[in-house]
Amino acid sequence: MRENRLRTLFAQKKLALSGWVSMGNSLLAEVVANGGYDAVTVDLQHGLFSVESAIPMLQAISTTDAVPLVRCSENSLGEINKLLDAGAYGVICPLINTADDAERFVRACHYSPRGGRSYGPARGFMYGGPDYFTHANRTILTLAMIETNEGYANAEAILQVPDLDGIFIGPSDLAIEMGLAPDAYETRELNDAIRTLVALAQKHGKYVGIFAGTMDMAQRMKEFGMDLVVPGTDIQQIKAEGARRIAALR
Amino acid sequence: MRENRLRTLFAQKKLALSGWVSMGNSLLAEVVANGGYDAVTVDLQHGLFSVESAIPMLQAISTTDAVPLVRCSENSLGEINKLLDAGAYGVICPLINTADDAERFVRACHYSPRGGRSYGPARGFMYGGPDYFTHANRTILTLAMIETNEGYANAEAILQVPDLDGIFIGPSDLAIEMGLAPDAYETRELNDAIRTLVALAQKHGKYVGIFAGTMDMAQRMKEFGMDLVVPGTDIQQIKAEGARRIAALR
Amino acid sequence: MRENRLRTLFAQKKLALSGWVSMGNSLLAEVVANGGYDAVTVDLQHGLFSVESAIPMLQAISTTDAVPLVRCSENSLGEINKLLDAGAYGVICPLINTADDAERFVRACHYSPRGGRSYGPARGFMYGGPDYFTHANRTILTLAMIETNEGYANAEAILQVPDLDGIFIGPSDLAIEMGLAPDAYETRELNDAIRTLVALAQKHGKYVGIFAGTMDMAQRMKEFGMDLVVPGTDIQQIKAEGARRIAALR
Amino acid sequence: MRENRLRTLFAQKKLALSGWVSMGNSLLAEVVANGGYDAVTVDLQHGLFSVESAIPMLQAISTTDAVPLVRCSENSLGEINKLLDAGAYGVICPLINTADDAERFVRACHYSPRGGRSYGPARGFMYGGPDYFTHANRTILTLAMIETNEGYANAEAILQVPDLDGIFIGPSDLAIEMGLAPDAYETRELNDAIRTLVALAQKHGKYVGIFAGTMDMAQRMKEFGMDLVVPGTDIQQIKAEGARRIAALR
Amino acid sequence: MRENRLRTLFAQKKLALSGWVSMGNSLLAEVVANGGYDAVTVDLQHGLFSVESAIPMLQAISTTDAVPLVRCSENSLGEINKLLDAGAYGVICPLINTADDAERFVRACHYSPRGGRSYGPARGFMYGGPDYFTHANRTILTLAMIETNEGYANAEAILQVPDLDGIFIGPSDLAIEMGLAPDAYETRELNDAIRTLVALAQKHGKYVGIFAGTMDMAQRMKEFGMDLVVPGTDIQQIKAEGARRIAALR
Amino acid sequence: MRENRLRTLFAQKKLALSGWVSMGNSLLAEVVANGGYDAVTVDLQHGLFSVESAIPMLQAISTTDAVPLVRCSENSLGEINKLLDAGAYGVICPLINTADDAERFVRACHYSPRGGRSYGPARGFMYGGPDYFTHANRTILTLAMIETNEGYANAEAILQVPDLDGIFIGPSDLAIEMGLAPDAYETRELNDAIRTLVALAQKHGKYVGIFAGTMDMAQRMKEFGMDLVVPGTDIQQIKAEGARRIAALR
Repeated sequence: MRENRLRTLFAQKKLALSGWVSMGNSLLAEVVANGGYDAVTVDLQHGLFSVESAIPMLQAISTTDAVPLVRCSENSLGEINKLLDAGAYGVICPLINTADDAERFVRACHYSPRGGRSYGPARGFMYGGPDYFTHANRTILTLAMIETNEGYANAEAILQVPDLDGIFIGPSDLAIEMGLAPDAYETRELNDAIRTLVALAQKHGKYVGIFAGTMDMAQRMKEFGMDLVVPGTDIQQIKAEGARRIAALR
Repeated sequence: MRENRLRTLFAQKKLALSGWVSMGNSLLAEVVANGGYDAVTVDLQHGLFSVESAIPMLQAISTTDAVPLVRCSENSLGEINKLLDAGAYGVICPLINTADDAERFVRACHYSPRGGRSYGPARGFMYGGPDYFTHANRTILTLAMIETNEGYANAEAILQVPDLDGIFIGPSDLAIEMGLAPDAYETRELNDAIRTLVALAQKHGKYVGIFAGTMDMAQRMKEFGMDLVVPGTDIQQIKAEGARRIAALR
Repeated sequence: MRENRLRTLFAQKKLALSGWVSMGNSLLAEVVANGGYDAVTVDLQHGLFSVESAIPMLQAISTTDAVPLVRCSENSLGEINKLLDAGAYGVICPLINTADDAERFVRACHYSPRGGRSYGPARGFMYGGPDYFTHANRTILTLAMIETNEGYANAEAILQVPDLDGIFIGPSDLAIEMGLAPDAYETRELNDAIRTLVALAQKHGKYVGIFAGTMDMAQRMKEFGMDLVVPGTDIQQIKAEGARRIAALR
Repeated sequence: MRENRLRTLFAQKKLALSGWVSMGNSLLAEVVANGGYDAVTVDLQHGLFSVESAIPMLQAISTTDAVPLVRCSENSLGEINKLLDAGAYGVICPLINTADDAERFVRACHYSPRGGRSYGPARGFMYGGPDYFTHANRTILTLAMIETNEGYANAEAILQVPDLDGIFIGPSDLAIEMGLAPDAYETRELNDAIRTLVALAQKHGKYVGIFAGTMDMAQRMKEFGMDLVVPGTDIQQIKAEGARRIAALR
Repeated sequence: MRENRLRTLFAQKKLALSGWVSMGNSLLAEVVANGGYDAVTVDLQHGLFSVESAIPMLQAISTTDAVPLVRCSENSLGEINKLLDAGAYGVICPLINTADDAERFVRACHYSPRGGRSYGPARGFMYGGPDYFTHANRTILTLAMIETNEGYANAEAILQVPDLDGIFIGPSDLAIEMGLAPDAYETRELNDAIRTLVALAQKHGKYVGIFAGTMDMAQRMKEFGMDLVVPGTDIQQIKAEGARRIAALR
Repeated sequence: MRENRLRTLFAQKKLALSGWVSMGNSLLAEVVANGGYDAVTVDLQHGLFSVESAIPMLQAISTTDAVPLVRCSENSLGEINKLLDAGAYGVICPLINTADDAERFVRACHYSPRGGRSYGPARGFMYGGPDYFTHANRTILTLAMIETNEGYANAEAILQVPDLDGIFIGPSDLAIEMGLAPDAYETRELNDAIRTLVALAQKHGKYVGIFAGTMDMAQRMKEFGMDLVVPGTDIQQIKAEGARRIAALR
């Protein structure tokens, strides 16, 4: 089975960067995947498209070396299984608030006996190789989102769920839950919480990633020791560069 | 943030009319939205299309003054959040049978601390404005469907769920549950039940809307004091006018 | 090969009515096809969708007895062949201005030796039957649109093109070319021109159809002796019935 | 209401064969439906497409005599209702592990009082007929998938759920749960389990079907007395014939 | 009819900036349209999508004040008419090499008597207003692309075609035709040619626009006196900002 | 620029086999591309989908070593350019009847000075590499279809058009033009004509390929010395294997 290059990067203690696609277009996904990211995440939660559109996006990413990740829209066995069938090599699952949530998520991503993933990996075989079934359980990456007060309080228990590979921090939602603005990326409270989560993950030998709302934050997250940083979305890339171009010409 | 004109109409005690789109086509949505309705509801429950197709439909409605509403397919945080991200200004949620169901629905539509809506309103900002996050909780309209015997029995408890804006009656399903035909719109039992629900909503200062299966029923619902009436679906409009035209020429 | 019921109706001197679909949705096409029309025309010219969306629309119409017609977007061999492959049983071709245009159109619709239609009727075999190739040339209906001054002047020559089945009048474009408003359906000039075209078609034993912009016009067209009348579009049906419903409730 | 030909075949003790469509294309569905199968199953679980794409696929199948079945992606009222609205005449539901699961599934497929199916069968009326509501509960076929150890242990209880029509065996997932490879179709353990399930179904007067991973297995399943056999997927058909053709020419 | 704000800007001698969308996604179009551009061009020539996908993109742009432009894929009456029906307020037509080409293009964009545009502006009425037909001929903007040696040689004749509003320069194709590299934006030859075209356009009182391959070029084009500048595509925006972000974090 | 493996195979006098995709689904394209073919042809002529759907199909093929070919729907600069932009590495063009047709086709596939291909190869750069522009003219394969009596008569002149890489024979259309049935693959006349074309191509040092309607024909075409053979379509593969499976179980 094709290796999961993110696991290799993580093992080498190298920062991995993921692009983030939230518009449902396979050409866009291919453009982002050709841009130099180590991985590209197809976002089914806030991305305004359905699972079906994720298929050609995953195909497009598969024309490159970037690892195809997905963020599922919810902790749903049905949706997660379909995305894995489609060749996703990692899943970021939103709203993991308890160890039970995490266990359910891990089970959705693993074949029996570890979990209850259903068998039918049409694209999995094509992208991963004919020995997909044998190796999938230890190749697919599982990252649980910590983005609520409850999830933050339960983070250590979540991190101890067997076969969960790590956590992924949702800073805007966590900020809102802490009573801050969604873009309060510079506040001490939020950054303290993030540092605590990094330390917890490292203590338990798990990976930790984050979405960075600004480039300043992204730099800081690199310094915090993150394994995986997402430096903004495709929409942010379009907007930032468009604003720069328009300003230069007005 | 752009106002929710339905709230304005409701405050003025004016009857609001909503078009109803159940076929997945953005031009159709724009045609209906240009037809003079105060709102257009994109129906994800019985409408034969997916969330992804709702996006261009909501965009099309947004070219007009009609308020973009959705009926979600079920009481699901993931789906509701995606529809709100896409700029829906109100959600009609099917099958609210208990106050717990209603509370879960309200939480899906509100940001913390009132609820658990996740942050990522791509189109919300574009349609609503840059202050979307600050005002969304009190702008988005939440209407719980009463359409089962259980929901009917629990209607008063449902209406007392804080921050639920009102109820929306599903007369065909309610009729079926009462042992009547789905089109038993003229029966005394059904109409008594509807009147009871209107009175309950008014008692608790909440809004009440309904889908009207026929124009006779729509007229009666206006007289019952409804805040919102849906006078049939797009499919019914196509069929009624088509039958009229064919009959005239045979 | 499945018969072309329009030919049967025409032979019986019965007025045929066709629905008209200009929004790209297969459910809409099925709703219209179930409405009682003898045929349903999928409009690729002013309909805002592509050939690809016409395929499921033709499939949907094929679940009923309504004859699947198309209006192609232009007199293009490539597009016409694809639509015939997809199972269309008749083609209305816009902007036939000369006998040469008509001859080119006829050739696009017929296999050699009469024409240059390319072989590959994937859905043709499924809808029409295994003997499709043998009978297609005499089953498929070809209707040339007369909608310009030039086409009007050349109508008799056009009608004499061998194997052209008839003409279809575009009254709005013809009106514009005559210096009238596009909805000048009641003017004497336009109606005289239409009557002339009907007479010419009948003289040459060809069929004649028309799009009727209003129901008054549709009635008059029936009286003029048309073989085929289209009493408005799907959009008009939606708008007319919507306006009626809204007016009744305001 | 149009009869469900599968029920007729089952009553006649005739083996029914179903095609299996796992790629989201309506032409493909029509090709398979024209191939001679008694039914065609549109697979929403491992099929890489969404509910919306299932609509034109069901329309395409409806141009033939093949019975339109679906496998839903999960035991979800919302999705099942939408598929039934779209004209599916039978539902295969994955991961039925307990009688409670089965009861929930049956309720999703039946109108009140037997279940909680919501009313809005747009295509149901077109495909089934105007008396759809009256007969749907006893026409729609409900098949619960047995594919886990838990489901196997509870099979007899599941089979006794009133109004469940039968079971459908998922051999690969069952094999995995038994500690075997997903393609261990020839092992004694798996075949013993399958025979046990057939006997249980027959004892309770219920139907039993299965997906056959190979043609050898399909033959054996016929001998086991299955009511319904699926001899592989569309993807398998493409691959098997493609490999044969390439091998012949190399 | 809604004004064409580009005409207003041009009349005020203000530089207009257009965004450029070459990926087929309506959310992307809306994001670009909200970015501050005076217009957004939906590129059907090199954009990898079809006319059908342009519809929701034009709808999305119509939720903003940005003027919806299109670049058609070729000088085709059928395609141009469909795009105008869909509400485009201006057309950039590739490969205008002669005055005859330009005349054909102008005729495709105008109703009779000036041209042969067919009547059926479904979205035109919704976006432009009920008086669309009366004013469309003088509202819609027509820009002919000069991008070949032949077109350059015939530029003055092209500019004199009545009712053509102006020209739009394709610098990469023009460079290739001149024997230069497609990105030879800094060469004297190319810039001399561009200046010549600007002077010719101004001499004949016509507008002149250009696609700028780099921001340096965009600045220079502003200085050259262009009426309309496109500072790169959506893909370039995504790539430039992505590269910047990745470089900052490596 | 990535090599065109078909050119390598042709240079080595090895028979190349191409799969043929005529249903618009990217997963199907990927399945066929993984099946062992040297190339996969996306058929825009008789394939029932549009250019837009060809994009994800070409992306899917690009995940494998199979060379992505297209058959365009007609000899149209606009369509051919869009398909090349999308990364097609070869074009089969239908209905080349004269050397002029062939010259026009060649020009559509080559940048200036050899042709008039427009610059904008979004996917070309991603699939081919950053030096795409420099090498595209000699990498892209151009195959002109001979499928009419006229084309057959002009074959030698067509083969002498500079930079045309070869011809591709359409046996069904050629048979029809010769007055035979479309599946007259065993007739002497047709086979004589094919042999003549092979000899002509070889005489002029050009490649020659063919679509084979049956496996017997495919074998014979190999013996005739074809460079490229297409052993049937995806639809034929589905049907052949489906029929085999059903027959075995009845």
